[in-house]
Amino acid sequence: MDTFEAIKKRRSVKSFDINHKMTRDEITKILESAILSPTSYNIQNWRFVIVTSQEIKDKISELSHGQKQVSEASLVIVLCGDLNSWDKNPERYWKNIPEEPRSMLVDSLRNSYRDKPQMQRDEAMRSCGMAAQTIMLAAKSMGYDTCPMKGFDYDKVGKLINLPDDHIIVMMVVVGKASKQAPPRGGQLPLSEISFKNHF
Amino acid sequence: MDTFEAIKKRRSVKSFDINHKMTRDEITKILESAILSPTSYNIQNWRFVIVTSQEIKDKISELSHGQKQVSEASLVIVLCGDLNSWDKNPERYWKNIPEEPRSMLVDSLRNSYRDKPQMQRDEAMRSCGMAAQTIMLAAKSMGYDTCPMKGFDYDKVGKLINLPDDHIIVMMVVVGKASKQAPPRGGQLPLSEISFKNHF
Repeated sequence: MDTFEAIKKRRSVKSFDINHKMTRDEITKILESAILSPTSYNIQNWRFVIVTSQEIKDKISELSHGQKQVSEASLVIVLCGDLNSWDKNPERYWKNIPEEPRSMLVDSLRNSYRDKPQMQRDEAMRSCGMAAQTIMLAAKSMGYDTCPMKGFDYDKVGKLINLPDDHIIVMMVVVGKASKQAPPRGGQLPLSEISFKNHF
Repeated sequence: MDTFEAIKKRRSVKSFDINHKMTRDEITKILESAILSPTSYNIQNWRFVIVTSQEIKDKISELSHGQKQVSEASLVIVLCGDLNSWDKNPERYWKNIPEEPRSMLVDSLRNSYRDKPQMQRDEAMRSCGMAAQTIMLAAKSMGYDTCPMKGFDYDKVGKLINLPDDHIIVMMVVVGKASKQAPPRGGQLPLSEISFKNHF
């Protein structure tokens, strides 16, 4: 599907065919697309928990104010950020480049994130935001629909997926075969209101 | 361009043809794509400052450790978040839906964000992350290249673009005609390391 068609047709869908299963190849195709999204310093700080178990989807649905798209969708992808990825053998993020620039990058990376918890959190949000949109556009291009979500109990979902202590959940994206299309867009602001030429 | 081709070919490009100008229609096409990205509650909390002035691009380049892609690119898009968009006449975000559900949404929105500065900030990061990836894929599909950036002096760039007090800068994306392609990807982590089945 053409990129612009995917961008236009991507909508937040709330009803999915609960009997539809996605193949392993389809799931892999979506994830392989997601990890081509950019991250600062190439730290690849996203972690993707792919929930296909109906039991766990149902539990997450309960922890999401009962929103049924979580139970019905074929996949629930919990996008998490590893807050300490900058400090976990970062040489591997640039293994294909010569040692000298790699070593400079490692120093610069550590200086950027060490003792900066807000920066670490912001980076998780930014990286997962970019990857989430890739997931949604890739899924749309494969004939699937999605719904990005943050209306759930983060602590309890974290316990359910054994979230490591130094990770945070950023958001979820559910993916599946739509059983009902989204209504028209709710109230888009005009470009003139949200874009500015050279400065505010 | 096919969505998957755009996802695969999008790379962070550092060299652009400084003489290339994008047309107003091209810039509008990118922005009209960006605002089709999802936001929580449809709050559309992103704000896009489109810098085409060579003088301002040069100043931002200086504030970005002299990174030349900022000066050379046709556009510098500064993605900002309005931290208080949830409280600014939010009825307009759902003007197309009936009054009763709209009123419930407004109440729920206010309860989600009021007195929650970290949540407001997270939402700016998430929304701008998703919109940034849309911008990069849209630009790639139009034959342009991009570079997402956060390595700059946020305070000084904020002053330069007259950033309102209740806004934050999330990141920048520069867009232009590549004069040199990106080197091969630096060191991608395997899917097995960053994806998990049902739980960590």
